[in-house]
Amino acid sequence: MRTIDVQASSHDYSIHIGSGLRLALKSYISMDYSKILIMTDENVANIYLDDVLGQFSEKEILKVIIPAGESSKSIEIFYSTHTKAIEFGLDRSSLIIALGGGVVGDLAGFIASTYMRGIDYIQMPTTILAHDSSVGGKVAINHELGKNLIGSFYPPKLVLYDIDTLHTLPTREIRSGYAEIIKEAMLAKQSNLNEILSTTISDIPNEKLMQDLELGIKIKAAIVEEDEKERGTRKHLNLGHTLGHAIEAVLGYGKITHGEAVGIGLLFAVYVSEKYFSKKILFSQLLSWLKKNHYPLNIVNSLTPTALVDKMKTDKKNVHNKIHMVLLEAIGQPTVHSFEDNKILDYIQSFFDMVKEEMMN
Amino acid sequence: MRTIDVQASSHDYSIHIGSGLRLALKSYISMDYSKILIMTDENVANIYLDDVLGQFSEKEILKVIIPAGESSKSIEIFYSTHTKAIEFGLDRSSLIIALGGGVVGDLAGFIASTYMRGIDYIQMPTTILAHDSSVGGKVAINHELGKNLIGSFYPPKLVLYDIDTLHTLPTREIRSGYAEIIKEAMLAKQSNLNEILSTTISDIPNEKLMQDLELGIKIKAAIVEEDEKERGTRKHLNLGHTLGHAIEAVLGYGKITHGEAVGIGLLFAVYVSEKYFSKKILFSQLLSWLKKNHYPLNIVNSLTPTALVDKMKTDKKNVHNKIHMVLLEAIGQPTVHSFEDNKILDYIQSFFDMVKEEMMN
Repeated sequence: MRTIDVQASSHDYSIHIGSGLRLALKSYISMDYSKILIMTDENVANIYLDDVLGQFSEKEILKVIIPAGESSKSIEIFYSTHTKAIEFGLDRSSLIIALGGGVVGDLAGFIASTYMRGIDYIQMPTTILAHDSSVGGKVAINHELGKNLIGSFYPPKLVLYDIDTLHTLPTREIRSGYAEIIKEAMLAKQSNLNEILSTTISDIPNEKLMQDLELGIKIKAAIVEEDEKERGTRKHLNLGHTLGHAIEAVLGYGKITHGEAVGIGLLFAVYVSEKYFSKKILFSQLLSWLKKNHYPLNIVNSLTPTALVDKMKTDKKNVHNKIHMVLLEAIGQPTVHSFEDNKILDYIQSFFDMVKEEMMN
Repeated sequence: MRTIDVQASSHDYSIHIGSGLRLALKSYISMDYSKILIMTDENVANIYLDDVLGQFSEKEILKVIIPAGESSKSIEIFYSTHTKAIEFGLDRSSLIIALGGGVVGDLAGFIASTYMRGIDYIQMPTTILAHDSSVGGKVAINHELGKNLIGSFYPPKLVLYDIDTLHTLPTREIRSGYAEIIKEAMLAKQSNLNEILSTTISDIPNEKLMQDLELGIKIKAAIVEEDEKERGTRKHLNLGHTLGHAIEAVLGYGKITHGEAVGIGLLFAVYVSEKYFSKKILFSQLLSWLKKNHYPLNIVNSLTPTALVDKMKTDKKNVHNKIHMVLLEAIGQPTVHSFEDNKILDYIQSFFDMVKEEMMN
């Protein structure tokens, strides 16, 4: 098992990564919680829920199973889960457990942050992508006008990462998770990035997966420790997300995975960076890696640049009505820049043209 | 003007109490906020909203006027205000202003705490009761199963208390506010309490009102500084609220004011304290003061003790299924006790009998 400790402003917490942790959950719960609510989605429930439930009596734990997918991060499920929690008798000394991917983690975490003004919760991520959302305390639900617009900063008490649960992931999900890992490596240093660029998603040995995951989490944890509330450096974690979020929103959530959209967004961020700083940084290597790993770059054929810019304008990272983007001056040297709509539109158009051309090669 | 400074874990903030402050709001806003949302209710809007709006251009400030009353602290208004804020273009460097009583303050504060994971807000209380809710950062909306069940701890950036706005309050609202002030004095010391017991609500000179308000806020501020997240001493502020909240919930919010319910709850807390510690503490003086000031003690005739106990059991202050109550060992010596349902039921029954008898005298 590997353990990474994170210092949050309200409390410190540990991230344990290892095999079989879901079966040992109870031994990691140090406090005497009055009751427990465990949230998971239909897919995860079928495979892993019983492993966790088996450690508790029916009287002490309530299971809440939500439909898989981004649409569950809704105000309706937020509210109805509060109802279930109240009816089950959860109180201020109760615990919420999020067993699943980012959707479950974000939703369960936001419920924990608002239930009776905040109770403890534990993240048990079951996807690679969730290594990102489960660390750092960003929790939220979606508003119909934009993703993650209603939420808070509320760190978990513990992150328990059972790597056994990653074995059942479809390749698409592994691809989705690796977009965030490669992003983290781009924010760190060249040697980290080389490490991830050497990974072929369709065939990752277990030890390599553990190692990449630990690398990503360590980079992320260091950034959120420095800037928990995203006033400065934490903004760098949005690398690739300006276009990524817009793609997801325009296509409708679920058409392509979050990480697949971020993968394209990262390539766009590098494209703009190379233009802006007039130097080669990473475009061709990143493009090769995305192609090799079957990121859906051809989606650009069905996207309208103006629609993407419209979505970007409602992104919560934007301040004073300009579109903010994280660029890379070099590997490990991110900076935040703001652009007028039209400039971004130009960049998207020429980027799409280039990608289309590349896809024909 | 009087100023009280409060240290919160995330930041410090000032509470200014004085005349004409609503007209000078702009001079107290130090940051360059991108946009402002001001929330108020229909009643306050009619009298004071223009005084505030006049300081800003239409492009920079959005007004959101909610129906007066507790029922506005709903998930529907919470969500629809988010919608309006997004459509108006509020971003992470925007500001929310709560102009009104506790309902507006709690709701606007909770929206601020969750909008794009939290933006700044300013409390501008316009009732005496709101001296309590506007200080200390407790924000929330109601769940249909209980009051304030969905919320967070999120301190304001500033509290601007314009005492001119208190002149237009009906006596009932002054009565409501004084219940919290007398509660605060009960938690402090005998001389503070004597000060408040000397107040006759139907006829308070301006200077006396300022002084009582400052006293209440200072006591409250000292407690929340010591225990922001209500893990210990802040629980003492729930004195009188175990029965008070239950009365409100059983009657339906709005039948009697929050403070009127708390007034009866305080008398009940003193009643139980005197029984529990087998000594006289305050019952007869408090009863006289409540009678003199026309707190609706006769409401006990229309309340069923079992219904009250049922409500208490869903109160979020309860942990491990027992009913918690703040008692007073003496003035300024609060302690938290937990009771079985039946014990509380006995106390309520004998308390009601005593009040009914007293009301006939």
